[in-house]
Amino acid sequence: MKAIVNIYLKEGVLDPQGKATKHALESLGFKNVQDVRIGKQIVLDLDIEDKEEAYKEVEQMAQTLLANTVIEDYNIEIVQ
Amino acid sequence: MKAIVNIYLKEGVLDPQGKATKHALESLGFKNVQDVRIGKQIVLDLDIEDKEEAYKEVEQMAQTLLANTVIEDYNIEIVQ
Repeated sequence: MKAIVNIYLKEGVLDPQGKATKHALESLGFKNVQDVRIGKQIVLDLDIEDKEEAYKEVEQMAQTLLANTVIEDYNIEIVQ
Repeated sequence: MKAIVNIYLKEGVLDPQGKATKHALESLGFKNVQDVRIGKQIVLDLDIEDKEEAYKEVEQMAQTLLANTVIEDYNIEIVQ
């Protein structure tokens, strides 16, 4: 089973990488960009058959290692 | 209009960050992880109303700045 964890900065947390990307896009002529936020997308291949079990396990991974829950939020998608 | 660009390493390209994460998960007791790949998720707020136009503009951004197309692939999702 495959799981996708999207990790993104909480609202209100500054995103300097996103800001730098916005400026770079503007200097390249992309004038319609209002905001850029950069997060992580982690794709996990799991040796688990049950969808619910996979979700629970990935939730635990996100809480303990993948995300810094002080400044980041995440969502989990189980595919296949 | 909001666009999400997911950027991930092409198949066959080594992902040391993913490998390190896999090992860290294993050492925490998550034994069912077969593979971990880490990519970026970029969320753009655009001042464009037309969905098709937004897609084209974001495609250009991905090609010229956001992705390194030698080693990375991307997909674009236009939301709202």
